[in-house]
Amino acid sequence: MKNKLLVVGTMAYDAIETPYDKVDRILGGAATYISLASSKFEVDCGLVSVIGDDFENSDLKILTDLEVSIDGVEQVSGGKSFFWSGRYHDDMNGRTTLETQLNVLENFSPNVPDSYRNAEVMMIGNLHPGVQLTALNQMSGKSRFVILDTMNFWMDNFRDTLDEVIAKVDLITINDEEARQLSEEHSLVKAAKKIHAMGPKYVIIKKGEHGAMLFGEGKVFIIPAFPIDQVVDPTGAGDSFAGGISGILANANTIDFETLKTGMIYGTVLASFTVEQFGTKSLLQVTSDSINNRIQQFRDSTSFERNEK
Amino acid sequence: MKNKLLVVGTMAYDAIETPYDKVDRILGGAATYISLASSKFEVDCGLVSVIGDDFENSDLKILTDLEVSIDGVEQVSGGKSFFWSGRYHDDMNGRTTLETQLNVLENFSPNVPDSYRNAEVMMIGNLHPGVQLTALNQMSGKSRFVILDTMNFWMDNFRDTLDEVIAKVDLITINDEEARQLSEEHSLVKAAKKIHAMGPKYVIIKKGEHGAMLFGEGKVFIIPAFPIDQVVDPTGAGDSFAGGISGILANANTIDFETLKTGMIYGTVLASFTVEQFGTKSLLQVTSDSINNRIQQFRDSTSFERNEK
Repeated sequence: MKNKLLVVGTMAYDAIETPYDKVDRILGGAATYISLASSKFEVDCGLVSVIGDDFENSDLKILTDLEVSIDGVEQVSGGKSFFWSGRYHDDMNGRTTLETQLNVLENFSPNVPDSYRNAEVMMIGNLHPGVQLTALNQMSGKSRFVILDTMNFWMDNFRDTLDEVIAKVDLITINDEEARQLSEEHSLVKAAKKIHAMGPKYVIIKKGEHGAMLFGEGKVFIIPAFPIDQVVDPTGAGDSFAGGISGILANANTIDFETLKTGMIYGTVLASFTVEQFGTKSLLQVTSDSINNRIQQFRDSTSFERNEK
Repeated sequence: MKNKLLVVGTMAYDAIETPYDKVDRILGGAATYISLASSKFEVDCGLVSVIGDDFENSDLKILTDLEVSIDGVEQVSGGKSFFWSGRYHDDMNGRTTLETQLNVLENFSPNVPDSYRNAEVMMIGNLHPGVQLTALNQMSGKSRFVILDTMNFWMDNFRDTLDEVIAKVDLITINDEEARQLSEEHSLVKAAKKIHAMGPKYVIIKKGEHGAMLFGEGKVFIIPAFPIDQVVDPTGAGDSFAGGISGILANANTIDFETLKTGMIYGTVLASFTVEQFGTKSLLQVTSDSINNRIQQFRDSTSFERNEK
């Protein structure tokens, strides 16, 4: 029997502009990317999210074809799906949000299906901390590992609730700026220490094109991003990374620092595929062989022997 | 007999302000940091530079005590040493130059001592490309490996001469912005390809706190920076990195991709010490044991096994 992974997060439609191209309405959302990435591993993934009438059946079928359970996805009659529109800057790192239509997300109250309340791993995507807490409180005590994503907006406006959520999770994944804001420390080493003290045993700090750092068990693990020739669309990179981690953790029998390292490596490689095409296209196409080839390339590009001088 | 390393570059006094502290006049300059860093390895290092009357004998003695030859250091009677003054921003990455007094550097014409014209490795620090070329042209044909550092100012103002220098070197080390400017490519993978085509077999792209990338022989090697608790003064980090590479290469019997990887690792660790105190203080104090400990920590923090999924 496969281990269960519960993913709570947004399902959305995105409009994306880059310096080279644009798309008007493609499948997006954190939970979408996370579950697509985690479906590359042998896990029983269940989704908790909310969508409107306008959500395409063909997009739901993409998920169910990959055996992702959508029993926890509420479709609001007469409602419209969450919509995000953004423009990437010339350097492809910064981006400007052009429009955010919360739509059905505005009154979202998650309902975790009974069959996933005991999931081995729970991945809570970026959402209002109150919504995150509601979902978290529905889990049975057996859930053994909870991963949290969040962002600066919630730190600015809902810090108390966010702190309550952070205190209950095992791993938090945030970017470098957010880690600095959350901890009020510039040094990422010091920031991670402060965030540990808030609750999470493990802290992953994401640095976009510069890779990511894992802190926990008194150790640190640092990886660069996988180098690719041309970034086409960075949307979903962070969520693909989180999805890779979630998939590896849910697939594992024990979760420790080494499991998290493996998760980060797979997450990094999955993210490298995601950014090579618009939206979920590349993530959907990629095969196990391509993933494993890139894992090997990644190892070749980062490993070295110790030659004492 | 030790292999020879010739270092051409600036010797200077620096005034440095950080958000936490400031110093008025401390020993600095690219060639100083490079030769101090390379002196950690068994190499016969010779310096080519220019200083004024005001240069302290005690500062020269620091170098000669480490058996760095200063035969190629011209002391200009009545001249004043190169002086740089800068202020680091709150994030310790960006900095503003407050004052640059070229002084004796303005009319510097390097003269490589006969005994170093056949050096196994030549490291040319950041200088006017015309000065770099003059030094390079004095080398005998036997010099087997030339490393070049430069910066955006020379790309903007002396591109033709700079291109002539670049065409003659084996390795160029520049930062990410400079690589993008030099190649007119945003992707660093593409940038490295274009720079290879300009001459250098190897390209190292420095990303400051985000590490560095090596391109060459159709391969890529990527390392993060060594994570430290608190950066006190970033001055000299890039030159310490280059000094570690130069020292390792000059110490080696053959120079290939693997030698360069080892050089980058030592360079990264040496730079991590440099930034922990103002100026050259930390670099002067650090022992082989401390260096080797950090190399081991660095390996532990970056290495992983391939677990196929």
